[in-house]
Amino acid sequence: MAMKQVANSAMKAIANSGSSSLLTRQLHASPGSKKIVGVFYKANEYFTKNPNFVGCVEGALGLRQWLESQGHQYIVTDDKEGPDCELEKHIPDLHVLISTPFHPAYVTAERIKKAKNLQLLLTAGIGSDHVDLKAAAEAGLTVAEVTGSNVVSVAEDELMRILILVRNFVPGYHQVITGDWNVAGIAYRAYDLEGKTVGTIGAGRIGKLLLQRLKPFNCNLLYHDRVKIDPELEKQTGAKFEEDLDAMLPKCDIIVINMPLTEKTRGMFDKDRIAKMKKGVLIVNNARGAIMDTQAVADACSSGHIAGYSGDVWYPQPAPKDHPWRYMPNQAMTPHISGTTIDAQLRYAAGVKDMLDRYFKGEDFPEQNYIVKAGELAPQYR
Amino acid sequence: MAMKQVANSAMKAIANSGSSSLLTRQLHASPGSKKIVGVFYKANEYFTKNPNFVGCVEGALGLRQWLESQGHQYIVTDDKEGPDCELEKHIPDLHVLISTPFHPAYVTAERIKKAKNLQLLLTAGIGSDHVDLKAAAEAGLTVAEVTGSNVVSVAEDELMRILILVRNFVPGYHQVITGDWNVAGIAYRAYDLEGKTVGTIGAGRIGKLLLQRLKPFNCNLLYHDRVKIDPELEKQTGAKFEEDLDAMLPKCDIIVINMPLTEKTRGMFDKDRIAKMKKGVLIVNNARGAIMDTQAVADACSSGHIAGYSGDVWYPQPAPKDHPWRYMPNQAMTPHISGTTIDAQLRYAAGVKDMLDRYFKGEDFPEQNYIVKAGELAPQYR
Repeated sequence: MAMKQVANSAMKAIANSGSSSLLTRQLHASPGSKKIVGVFYKANEYFTKNPNFVGCVEGALGLRQWLESQGHQYIVTDDKEGPDCELEKHIPDLHVLISTPFHPAYVTAERIKKAKNLQLLLTAGIGSDHVDLKAAAEAGLTVAEVTGSNVVSVAEDELMRILILVRNFVPGYHQVITGDWNVAGIAYRAYDLEGKTVGTIGAGRIGKLLLQRLKPFNCNLLYHDRVKIDPELEKQTGAKFEEDLDAMLPKCDIIVINMPLTEKTRGMFDKDRIAKMKKGVLIVNNARGAIMDTQAVADACSSGHIAGYSGDVWYPQPAPKDHPWRYMPNQAMTPHISGTTIDAQLRYAAGVKDMLDRYFKGEDFPEQNYIVKAGELAPQYR
Repeated sequence: MAMKQVANSAMKAIANSGSSSLLTRQLHASPGSKKIVGVFYKANEYFTKNPNFVGCVEGALGLRQWLESQGHQYIVTDDKEGPDCELEKHIPDLHVLISTPFHPAYVTAERIKKAKNLQLLLTAGIGSDHVDLKAAAEAGLTVAEVTGSNVVSVAEDELMRILILVRNFVPGYHQVITGDWNVAGIAYRAYDLEGKTVGTIGAGRIGKLLLQRLKPFNCNLLYHDRVKIDPELEKQTGAKFEEDLDAMLPKCDIIVINMPLTEKTRGMFDKDRIAKMKKGVLIVNNARGAIMDTQAVADACSSGHIAGYSGDVWYPQPAPKDHPWRYMPNQAMTPHISGTTIDAQLRYAAGVKDMLDRYFKGEDFPEQNYIVKAGELAPQYR
């Protein structure tokens, strides 16, 4: 969305909604107790297995004592769907909603409308597409995430998935657990990564880290983005800029998706765009599931046009039992985990605490954390 | 084995065996037709799926036409075990035996004794421990491999396995195919690689490539070997030399085995040595299965002392259906595949052809290819 459109929307929001607009939703916590709701995945028996496991309902980002000692109310739940869920009960009077991409609380325009006290939406992690950002901007809410908190985690995971697909790891593992041994059944489609052409679509924080980690593998590295990366990094990694995405697609043996989910990128890899890719392409997507046309991916895996698909992002999440990606051939999928390593949890928990602290004190957040601020969306979401 | 012992053995061999010794087994092909036997894994229906799939029985390293046009006899088989197997039939009169580590023809002292015409044992790949090297040296055979042909393949695969263990990938994949979704069940023991201590035991060709590929991950890199690596490479990778293996073990979050299997390294990771490792250590072993004490590894995985074990090497190979590593917790094993990517197959097929050509012409091989030459073992096998 262009800046002008946002401004127009914001103006309309002010005009239409009277007092429940930008002017009343600005980010200064009024004195007194706040109601903060956190939506995380539940750990159950796994919680006690790791003292640093803070990213779950039970761990509650390690914030309970700190928040309650200041007189705030802190509700945490994983129950986020449907009209009778726990989250829905607190929508009318919460001030702050914290969620994660791993178990996203979908914040629709309807929920925003109901949430009369809501001021602040925080993402513990990166990627705030679970929020209707346009509606949030129009309502004058602040949306912020812990930028950088798990970019290393995701980039590392992408390299793992590239290798898992290139090496045809999964059928090998299956043979082991089924008592089989058939080297040929793996090797006939196992390759070296060296010498292959790898293209990242999106070269933001994660894409850049991936390029750096790919450098010693001696691949041909390509990247597509709205803007060129720093010349120094381009030189360091040897990555070549491809301005025209559709011209880049047929060159790549391996394609990695590293874009945010926006109105522009939703469903952008449909049947036609997949057809432009090289036959036998391998795709890694740890960005967002909805960037792909779900059925087009499943069909291309079945036909062999896509020779391997790996990622940890789905739409919706949790992925239903009948999600076609669970059953398509040559997939190496997992639930959404790449950004929620124990190391990442500690970083994004610290980042959320820092922003809450600033919120209580009426201070600004680190500039790069803002996704929606004063009715305006961050550049990557426009 | 020390050089002096080899020389003594060779002298004894000459003394004991009369004419069937070093003097008659030297590496000059006498004129005329040679019988060459190749032992590879069978591809069956997978053979026709890839025109570059040369490393299997059906592909026969792409050598059939070339060998037969020169009047040589070329037998290929995967039938390598027991007294009635195809290989056994050809032992008495073959001149050259080609095998691979992926489906090894175990060349025992007994087989060497029977093989009166045998002059040359070639490994299509790297690692000639399937040959009784001492017996081969004593019999005056030449053993050679295609040094360097798949070191990149193996190093890449090791980095994949490190990440698979660090990220706890396998349980995530299981959830996908079983219709489950439980982020906590994966995340409670998923970590970043960044900042962890990774030690390679052995820093030869593969270990060095691994260190280079690990460099951008910002780990603490350690290595143990008989000798220090090149100072330039040490500086480039930041890897620190650990002279004392037992002192290095407790420092490592992740241990990668990169040594050949020799009389010294066989079973060297037994219960006692595993106990010296950090509790929760992750182990990657693409070197040889017999370097580990099989049951000690399985027990330590069950107790949790080893938090993850991944590799593609077993003893014996093919691994029997009841091999304990198939059933131990937190394993990410495959059959022996890391060095037999399509890219590697093309390289080691070319290397075998080159050595056969030199053999027919009475020329020396590239020096680094020799494992046994004139009764002497290569340094890494002594």
